[in-house]
Amino acid sequence: MNTIEAIYNRCSYRGTYKDTSVPREHLIKIMEAGLAAPSGCNKQTTSLIAVDDSEILKKLHAVIQPPIGETAPAMICVLTRRINAYRDKCYATQDYSAAIENMLLAIVELGYQSCWIEGHITDEDRIGYQMAQMLKVPDEYELVAFLPVGVADDECVRVKKLPFEERAWFNGFGKE
Amino acid sequence: MNTIEAIYNRCSYRGTYKDTSVPREHLIKIMEAGLAAPSGCNKQTTSLIAVDDSEILKKLHAVIQPPIGETAPAMICVLTRRINAYRDKCYATQDYSAAIENMLLAIVELGYQSCWIEGHITDEDRIGYQMAQMLKVPDEYELVAFLPVGVADDECVRVKKLPFEERAWFNGFGKE
Repeated sequence: MNTIEAIYNRCSYRGTYKDTSVPREHLIKIMEAGLAAPSGCNKQTTSLIAVDDSEILKKLHAVIQPPIGETAPAMICVLTRRINAYRDKCYATQDYSAAIENMLLAIVELGYQSCWIEGHITDEDRIGYQMAQMLKVPDEYELVAFLPVGVADDECVRVKKLPFEERAWFNGFGKE
Repeated sequence: MNTIEAIYNRCSYRGTYKDTSVPREHLIKIMEAGLAAPSGCNKQTTSLIAVDDSEILKKLHAVIQPPIGETAPAMICVLTRRINAYRDKCYATQDYSAAIENMLLAIVELGYQSCWIEGHITDEDRIGYQMAQMLKVPDEYELVAFLPVGVADDECVRVKKLPFEERAWFNGFGKE
């Protein structure tokens, strides 16, 4: 699969997963893809924890309410350090977003499905913080998102997007 | 090139470009890759303007000081609308970052080089705003980054990154 195919095949999968386990070798490949993303001033603010221990997964999913991705045999938790790249400029959000996108594409390339889960765990109930506590994440890191990883039971239902000409132009706003 | 190869081949190129033009068909492919990125609650907050008109490029580069990417025959400007996905939650930064990463990978896949240029144009001198004015971008959109696109004159020099085991673990922080 070439990159552009992977980009089109990526889809936010919210269904159930088969119990086929994800080999460590694949989880490493996915995380390496994430860490290969650029970061502002090369500050490398993103770190990752893959979870494939079923007991730990169970504990993590117990706090993820309402549940999502709970049948996936693995997940990758995304940590960020909100440090400045220079002066008062922090690009941590850009950094982890690029890392997540790389991982989502690597996941597709390797035949798995996933979904970028962020808003759900960074809301007022601070689910991400509870997950971080379970994973013994130091306070200077924030757990901002997780990606379930596994073989999907079903086809992924694609969201509808605006047509190209409403979002992309040439040589000036709104120009075809 | 498969996705994982493209992820490794991506590099922040800051050198000069050959004057080989980038066909529209390729610019469209790159922008389509960007627009295929996920967005929080599918709000599609990212829009794009490709510039390949040499006069307009010259005007834009006149305000980008110190210069970067000024020899590239094309650039893609990244616009965002900072609207909320739900309640007070805005994921516009995540959205455009994922779109940029997709475009950087598509650029590599098609044999070009680029660089994510953001901090340089979103600083106090508001270069991005000046660029947006030239491109007649309405006020509700913010020009947050641009990507030069072209065939590189030189090899790209890769930044050094921390080893995997300092940024990625299994089943708990710091665990191998």
